[in-house]
Amino acid sequence: MADKNKVKVRVSEREKEKPKDIAKKIKGLAEGVVQEIKKHKDPTFITMQRGKGNVEFDEAQGFIVLGEKSTTRNFLNIGHARKFMQTMMVMAKSHNYLNENKTASIREIYYELKHTLGTTKENTFEEQSESDACIVDLEHAIDSIREKLNLHANPKGTLYGDITLKDRMHNNDTFNAAKLGRGGWSIMSRLEPDEIEIVSCKADYVLVIETEAMFERLIEEGFAKKHKAILIGTGGQAARGTRRLVHRLHTEEKLPVYVFTDGDPYGWYIYSVIKQGSMALAAHSEFLACPNAKYIGMTLEDVDDYKLQDVTEKMKDGDIKRAKEMLDYPWFQNKPWQNELKMALDRKIRIEQQALAHRSLDFVAKEYLPKKIKNEVFLP
Amino acid sequence: MADKNKVKVRVSEREKEKPKDIAKKIKGLAEGVVQEIKKHKDPTFITMQRGKGNVEFDEAQGFIVLGEKSTTRNFLNIGHARKFMQTMMVMAKSHNYLNENKTASIREIYYELKHTLGTTKENTFEEQSESDACIVDLEHAIDSIREKLNLHANPKGTLYGDITLKDRMHNNDTFNAAKLGRGGWSIMSRLEPDEIEIVSCKADYVLVIETEAMFERLIEEGFAKKHKAILIGTGGQAARGTRRLVHRLHTEEKLPVYVFTDGDPYGWYIYSVIKQGSMALAAHSEFLACPNAKYIGMTLEDVDDYKLQDVTEKMKDGDIKRAKEMLDYPWFQNKPWQNELKMALDRKIRIEQQALAHRSLDFVAKEYLPKKIKNEVFLP
Repeated sequence: MADKNKVKVRVSEREKEKPKDIAKKIKGLAEGVVQEIKKHKDPTFITMQRGKGNVEFDEAQGFIVLGEKSTTRNFLNIGHARKFMQTMMVMAKSHNYLNENKTASIREIYYELKHTLGTTKENTFEEQSESDACIVDLEHAIDSIREKLNLHANPKGTLYGDITLKDRMHNNDTFNAAKLGRGGWSIMSRLEPDEIEIVSCKADYVLVIETEAMFERLIEEGFAKKHKAILIGTGGQAARGTRRLVHRLHTEEKLPVYVFTDGDPYGWYIYSVIKQGSMALAAHSEFLACPNAKYIGMTLEDVDDYKLQDVTEKMKDGDIKRAKEMLDYPWFQNKPWQNELKMALDRKIRIEQQALAHRSLDFVAKEYLPKKIKNEVFLP
Repeated sequence: MADKNKVKVRVSEREKEKPKDIAKKIKGLAEGVVQEIKKHKDPTFITMQRGKGNVEFDEAQGFIVLGEKSTTRNFLNIGHARKFMQTMMVMAKSHNYLNENKTASIREIYYELKHTLGTTKENTFEEQSESDACIVDLEHAIDSIREKLNLHANPKGTLYGDITLKDRMHNNDTFNAAKLGRGGWSIMSRLEPDEIEIVSCKADYVLVIETEAMFERLIEEGFAKKHKAILIGTGGQAARGTRRLVHRLHTEEKLPVYVFTDGDPYGWYIYSVIKQGSMALAAHSEFLACPNAKYIGMTLEDVDDYKLQDVTEKMKDGDIKRAKEMLDYPWFQNKPWQNELKMALDRKIRIEQQALAHRSLDFVAKEYLPKKIKNEVFLP
């Protein structure tokens, strides 16, 4: 049957910008500031407004996007001056990183730039949240992502399956992620196409898995090989590097993405972030979202179909509140999800993916997943 | 100079027990219970007492050990009966795993065993904490570790460096952890010598690193290759799989272990767990501890030596409380640590490893670590 939720997935044009293009953009911004100073004008820095008021769900693209509202910071405004200075420091430093082929974590750039100004007692930055905010401003000002500024957050996530990657920045190391024993490859915090090349990928789909323990289970059962699947363990909410990798497999390799989480608000949220992106990173969905991703479970229907009543957990107050909010999310405005959320709220139970072990350890690999994939029993 | 803290490190005899030996021990325990029933006696299960009252620091071995106090559970005691039944269930299930060459996470065994008993409304287990406690009882009863019962907790931690591993349970995959790009190998939750073989290891020492971001930094700087180091990123408190790997490198490969954490109570605790083991796992130090490990930093002296005053953080009340407690720990009863802890309490500051970025991104790799290792500037 035709899938009306399916959108045409493509590699973003912005994806193609090289480090030197990004460096040029930063330089352009800086030169603008210099020109304003030379003309004795008030230097300005323009970035985008964030938050709910400037976020929308783009149905055609199938992901969350940032609106058009911009915001201007003036150096000669006592409320803006400190932040203006901080932004210039972050700009200059990331420009250095790009020129020197260095990358840094967002904690490192904070520490590199933090110092006491001249003979004052004033610090350039008091907390990492200040430099983090400047990084976000800069991402929006140059219309790209921090990874392309050679910045990154902490890594998390694991890869397993018949995919061969090449790291151009590390002796052109070329390795297959199905041949690293049962441990798998530790996904880097930053894996831009210029640096990490997908050499080949012999898989039918990507299975994104919430818990590392379930990821290990599926490896032990030989699931990836038998079903030609790429397995990606997120260990909870997916880190940016992991989201970039799933996105690249979805857009570059055109692989279907199935997301396998616990049946609870946290699991649904993990899924929706993989699929549609997040409010906080609305401007970057083009680099991160997988609009055709499907939710493979757990569901309340599974509880009945597979007799898991004994191994459900009670929803806590926080879960119930979250689930109620989710009923209103634009991307859950379809019958299957409305049913799922209402059923969960009605029965007030949640079901973990590891609860499938109640049937037997290999049940998830031998029956649950193959059957659901074969019969396309997904939530959209 | 002779290091009076140095102890002779050896591979434990208990390390050599094979899965069939462990299965035999479990069977022995079960047969004992059957005998007692046949003789119309009250069936008993003997395990070790845990907690502070039965934990001591063994100076000769250089790690924390469990004392001799045992505890007996009787089936015909209303307060013990439920736990007795649960323990028998866990015993039988892990015996199955060993026979079938299966492994399971401690969450999976909980779900496998959880069900409603007969026509009652009584569940075998209500919470994972119940089955976890049975697993600990069983470990002590057979005098081994859960990994040898084919059980494991969640994985966490990353490996990088010139070490070649072979996974005998996965097509004999053989791979070198310096040739996986900058991502490194994702350390499994369970890596027993029978399954994961250290084929070769061309390194001078192991550097255990608290944050994954610092781990990435050292890879980017080419530190491991230049200094023949194995890098292990723990991502906070080290998981059991990671501790097993560090322990194996320390005992099997006789490599020195240097631990690089933040200079604060959490970092010191990470170090002391790697080195001496932990109270909670006192019985398993022989499988986990690295008694000759050294603490390479961060220290308060570093703050002065490397002019990091601007990038220290204030200690919180919880940090101060923790540091005061640590003053009394047996393994910190030496002058260098007493000085360090007192200095921290005096100045009430903490220093993160990433704060070294204040000097420059490559400072840690080019100057800080090489200088400290060359001059043996360690805490014991």
